[in-house]
Amino acid sequence: MTETLSIVKIGGNIIEDHEALSLFLEHFARLEGYKILVHGGGKKASELLQRLGIAPKMANGRRITDKATLDVAVMVYGGLVNKTIVAQLQHLKVNALGMSGADANSIQAHKRPVKEVDYGFAGDVDGVNSKILTTLLKQRLTPVFCALTHNQKGQLLNTNADTIAAEVAIGLSATFETTLYYCFELNGVLKDVNDKGSIIGKIDSHSYKELVSQGVISHGMLPKLHNCFHALRHGAKEVRIGNLGLFEKENTNYTSLVL
Amino acid sequence: MTETLSIVKIGGNIIEDHEALSLFLEHFARLEGYKILVHGGGKKASELLQRLGIAPKMANGRRITDKATLDVAVMVYGGLVNKTIVAQLQHLKVNALGMSGADANSIQAHKRPVKEVDYGFAGDVDGVNSKILTTLLKQRLTPVFCALTHNQKGQLLNTNADTIAAEVAIGLSATFETTLYYCFELNGVLKDVNDKGSIIGKIDSHSYKELVSQGVISHGMLPKLHNCFHALRHGAKEVRIGNLGLFEKENTNYTSLVL
Repeated sequence: MTETLSIVKIGGNIIEDHEALSLFLEHFARLEGYKILVHGGGKKASELLQRLGIAPKMANGRRITDKATLDVAVMVYGGLVNKTIVAQLQHLKVNALGMSGADANSIQAHKRPVKEVDYGFAGDVDGVNSKILTTLLKQRLTPVFCALTHNQKGQLLNTNADTIAAEVAIGLSATFETTLYYCFELNGVLKDVNDKGSIIGKIDSHSYKELVSQGVISHGMLPKLHNCFHALRHGAKEVRIGNLGLFEKENTNYTSLVL
Repeated sequence: MTETLSIVKIGGNIIEDHEALSLFLEHFARLEGYKILVHGGGKKASELLQRLGIAPKMANGRRITDKATLDVAVMVYGGLVNKTIVAQLQHLKVNALGMSGADANSIQAHKRPVKEVDYGFAGDVDGVNSKILTTLLKQRLTPVFCALTHNQKGQLLNTNADTIAAEVAIGLSATFETTLYYCFELNGVLKDVNDKGSIIGKIDSHSYKELVSQGVISHGMLPKLHNCFHALRHGAKEVRIGNLGLFEKENTNYTSLVL
């Protein structure tokens, strides 16, 4: 029987809220089987940029990662947020190992090609080193990934944490039965953005297309769900989107995505 | 035959100098056998503290690690410096894995007890998890340690990098034949601080006592050499102190410490 692997991505709102993060980590510690955590940095990077007097550069609503911004991302995602989570997980008896994609050459990427916009040191993922990750998992280590990859030529790259979670799930789905969890501030994908109770219980590739064409899924949820179906089409068994306790057994309040 | 392990600690002056660091990493990449790198953050942490308007707190010439200072240390040591080194080593085909002592519960410590001075979140090492480090080394991974440990209760602790290097050497000397290298800006321990060429080629426990009583070894070198002999007394085979190319085979210009 194939062993199960849970890949859990936590959103910025959880990372920014000390209590929410502690609560989430307690849930995560109880999660059985092999597991991997993926995080970004939320507003903590923006806060540090501001304190350092570095103005954020944006294009099409996305941040441009210049050298100063990358350094801040490396400090906040790779340093402060990652090590804080690792230390807390150790306290909860989870043998966490903080990683960027450069560590153990675990996630290879390339700098996003310049078309209309040069996004700077933003990375698009080329591949995941499933062999070393499997080895680490079999040692009962729990990798904790921050939103950084590298180009194998010495350059660190800022990389979307949702994408990292999806690519890690894809990379490991030949070895494990992978479920991908996206934890954020809501209980799932909403039918009506003004009604937090209007969770859509299940979305498959057919209803996904309908929901997009009806405009129910739009804005920030579009790239998130795109990532989800990308992962499902490439081997992930299921994707679940919901709140902190998403993977608790008694929880039935979430959106489940399947092909 | 016992396999060899090199534990290399680089000083702040190397980390602060982009070219010196690149040159050092090239030397390190050529070093054969199992190896571990240990680094602090040099003046980079002080610089960030200054930019953030956080005044350094000192007592008896040592920094007091308050919460704000610890956060900066975690960002700089665990984030910027660690990940930059890891990415550069990956480019040099060294399969580096950046770690704090919290990662994989590799180095356990406790907050330094308060006597006359409360040093804040400064950690004294209790033990090294030689089992997991051996497992990682056997996977041909090269751990890169920053100057951070944890108390297993969720608290990260700022810990002297020289001490981490010595403790890691001690912890692994039952499994490997360990040599400890301290790389800094000089070619070794000097007979005359004003003469950079006056390297003392060899120091053993006997001549060490003499050099201390004669005042030849003083100030900053005292805790460093104390660490060295501590490591030698607890299993390290040799300690070498010198410049960037310390472990290159043709290099004969360094200070060798043995019991």
